Amino acid sequence: MQPLEGVRVLDLSHVLAGPYCTMVLGDMGAEVIKVEQYPEGDLIRQMAPFQSGMSYGFSVINRNKQGIRLDLTTEEGQEVFYRLAKTADVIVENYRPGVTKKLGIDYETIKEKNPDIIYCSISGFGQTGPYKHKAGLDIMAQGMSGIMSMTGESNGRPVKVGVPVHDIGAGITALYHILFAYIYKLKHHEGQYIDVSLVDSALAWTVWEAAAYFGKGEIPVPSGSRHRRIAPYQAYKTQSGFILLGIVNERMWERFCHHVVERPQWQNDPRFATGNDRIENVEELEKEIEAVLTTQPSDVWLKRLEKQGVPCGPILNYEETLHNEQTQHREMVIDYDHPEVGLMKTLGFPAKMSKSPAEFRLPAPMLGQHTDHILEELDYSKAEIERLKHKAIV
Amino acid sequence: MQPLEGVRVLDLSHVLAGPYCTMVLGDMGAEVIKVEQYPEGDLIRQMAPFQSGMSYGFSVINRNKQGIRLDLTTEEGQEVFYRLAKTADVIVENYRPGVTKKLGIDYETIKEKNPDIIYCSISGFGQTGPYKHKAGLDIMAQGMSGIMSMTGESNGRPVKVGVPVHDIGAGITALYHILFAYIYKLKHHEGQYIDVSLVDSALAWTVWEAAAYFGKGEIPVPSGSRHRRIAPYQAYKTQSGFILLGIVNERMWERFCHHVVERPQWQNDPRFATGNDRIENVEELEKEIEAVLTTQPSDVWLKRLEKQGVPCGPILNYEETLHNEQTQHREMVIDYDHPEVGLMKTLGFPAKMSKSPAEFRLPAPMLGQHTDHILEELDYSKAEIERLKHKAIV
Repeated sequence: MQPLEGVRVLDLSHVLAGPYCTMVLGDMGAEVIKVEQYPEGDLIRQMAPFQSGMSYGFSVINRNKQGIRLDLTTEEGQEVFYRLAKTADVIVENYRPGVTKKLGIDYETIKEKNPDIIYCSISGFGQTGPYKHKAGLDIMAQGMSGIMSMTGESNGRPVKVGVPVHDIGAGITALYHILFAYIYKLKHHEGQYIDVSLVDSALAWTVWEAAAYFGKGEIPVPSGSRHRRIAPYQAYKTQSGFILLGIVNERMWERFCHHVVERPQWQNDPRFATGNDRIENVEELEKEIEAVLTTQPSDVWLKRLEKQGVPCGPILNYEETLHNEQTQHREMVIDYDHPEVGLMKTLGFPAKMSKSPAEFRLPAPMLGQHTDHILEELDYSKAEIERLKHKAIV
Repeated sequence: MQPLEGVRVLDLSHVLAGPYCTMVLGDMGAEVIKVEQYPEGDLIRQMAPFQSGMSYGFSVINRNKQGIRLDLTTEEGQEVFYRLAKTADVIVENYRPGVTKKLGIDYETIKEKNPDIIYCSISGFGQTGPYKHKAGLDIMAQGMSGIMSMTGESNGRPVKVGVPVHDIGAGITALYHILFAYIYKLKHHEGQYIDVSLVDSALAWTVWEAAAYFGKGEIPVPSGSRHRRIAPYQAYKTQSGFILLGIVNERMWERFCHHVVERPQWQNDPRFATGNDRIENVEELEKEIEAVLTTQPSDVWLKRLEKQGVPCGPILNYEETLHNEQTQHREMVIDYDHPEVGLMKTLGFPAKMSKSPAEFRLPAPMLGQHTDHILEELDYSKAEIERLKHKAIV
C-alpha cells in the first residue's frame, strides 16, 4: 500500500512547478488526473526532444498521471470540470493569479461544490500583494530572491543556477503543504486553500544569508565556488581539471597540510593558521593550493584526500553523473516501456522508504488519453461523450 | 489546531539538512526536541555572527524546537535517549552512515524499543552503495549531481549556487517523505525507515536535463544566466546594471521588438525570426539587445516591459530583497523577542495556508535549555537529574 492510495488529485497545472508537485503525489500512490486545456494541452508537449511524437520533457515530469483534455473556456467544459472536482481531494494549479477566477474554477467556486477540497495555487509572487499580477518565471524568482546576486563570479555577469531551482522548489513547497493540509483533513475533516509563490519558496532557503544580514548587516556577493565562511571550501584547479575540497575543521586542515599537499609550514603560516586567517587570505590560499595541485591530475589528489579523510569530490558532467556507480546503485535512472512511445528512461526517486516506497506505475499520458475513461466514470453516456467531442469540448 | 500537533520529533541532526527538516515540522505544530551532543552541541552554535552569545545562524534554523543536551557516547546517555525515543513518533539524524550504529541509536536498535517509529537518515550519498562512507557536504553534492557542471560561465571556473541548495533540498526531501510515512502510519499503524541523500535529492531536480540527455544525448554546459532552450531568456546589461527578460512565446517577442526596443525589423531578421533562430544566434541577439538597453537605465526598461506584458524583473541584492514591498507584504521577515537574547529576526513561511498556517511558537533553545523539563517528564527524579549532571551526561 502506498501512503496516498485512494487520494484523487486534479492537476490543472502546466510546465514545471505544478506538474512536479503532482508527479510526486502520483509517485506515492495518489490518483492524479492531469486536466489539459483543449486543443494543445500543456505547453511542454511542444518542447524538444521528442520520441514518437511525445515530448521527452513532458514524459519525465508527468509519470503516474492520467490525462483528460477539456476546454475550460466553455460552460460545458466547466461543467465537466465541476463534476470531476466533486470527486477530488486535491486540486493544484499554477496559472497567473486571476485566471482561475476568469475560468470559473477558482477556490471559492470549487469550494461551493466540494467544501472539503484542498486547493493549492502556485504563482511567481503569490496571490496577494503589489506584485501578484507580475509574471514570475523561474529566472525572475532567482533575481527577486537575491539568490542570483550571490551566485557567479565577483564582477562577472549575473549567473543563474543551471536547473530551474525555484520552479521545482515551489513545486516541492506546494507538495509538502498539500501533505500538511491532507494530514489536517484526515484529523479534522476540513479542506483549505494554499497559496505558494516561487519567490517565497526561494527566500525560505536563504537561512545563512538571513542570519548574516540580520546579525551584522552582511550583504552576500558572488563568490564563485567559494564558501563565504569556510576555507578551503571550493573548487581548485589540478593538472587535469578541477576538484572540490571542503575542509571544515582544524584537524582536517592539519592532515591536508601534512599528508596531502605536504606543506606542513602552512599550518603555522600567519596567513593560514586559523579559519579566519584562511578566509581573509582566501585568494592567496587559492594560489598556493593550486600551485601544488596543478602538478598532478585530479585522480591522484582525490585518492590522497580520501585516504586522509579530507572531504573532497569531483565535478562530474551530467553524463558522468548518470553513469556513476553510486547513481546506478541508488537506481536514479529508471528504464521502462511506454506503450505508445517505446523504450524510455526517467529519473528515479530521491528517497528510499522501507515500507511504502515510491513506485513507477503509469507512463505519462498521451494528450487526452483517458478522456473517455474518466468521463464514463463520471456517468457520462457514450452519446454525451460523442457530443462533447463533436463540440470540441473534450 | 496545527496539522502536526501531538507529534513528537527527536532531532539528532546538526548543521543544516536535518535541522531545516525538523524546523518545518515544528512550524507545523510538531513538538520537536533537539538532542545535542555533550558538551558543545550543534557545531552551528560556533558560527558567527552572534547576538548575546547565540549564533544567529543557529537561531534561524532551530526555531520551534526545545533542546536537551546529552552525552550519547556513554551508556547512561543512551539510556536517557532510549526513554525519550519510546515517547517519539519521528527521529531525524544526519550523521555520516555508520555513526548512529556506533552510538547504539540506529534504526534497528530504536525499532526494538519503539516498533512504530519513523526514522529518517540524511547523508551525502545515502546509506547504501560504494560511496556511502564518503563525506558528502553540500559542495560535493553540487559536484556529483552534475549541477555545478551546468552552472556558471562557459570556459569560466566552476561556480556553486549561492545558497547551499542541496543541504536544504535534502532537508525538504526528508521532510516530505516523513510526511508520507506519517500518513502511512495514520492509516496502517506502522513506522518505517527513510534513507535520504543529498545527491539523490539533487538529481531528482534535473528533470529537463534528464529529458535532453535521454532524448538526444545532450550534455548541458554552463550558460551564464541564459536558458538553454529559450531566447531571449537571461540577464541583459542596461545603462544602470542588469535586468532579467523571459520571452517565452512569439507574441511576446513581437511586442518586445515593436513596442519595447522599437526594432520591428528584428521580427523578420533571419537571425531572430523564430525561437530556434534566436537560440542559434543567442550571442548576436545579446549584443543587439544590449546595444539598445544600455541607452537607458533599468527602471525605464522595466516599466516599458511591464506595460507591454513582457515578463521581466530586476536582480535584487539580498538587502533589497528583504526590504522589497512584496517581501514585506508576504511577511517573509518575522520580528520577535528572544527571552535570553533580545530582539531578533527570522525568515517567514514559504506558503500561506487558510486553515492551518505555520506559526512561530518558540525561539531557538539555548544549549540544554529544556534538559530538566524533558527529563522530569520522563520520570527522572530531581536526584537522578543531579547525578546525571554531575557525571556530565546531561
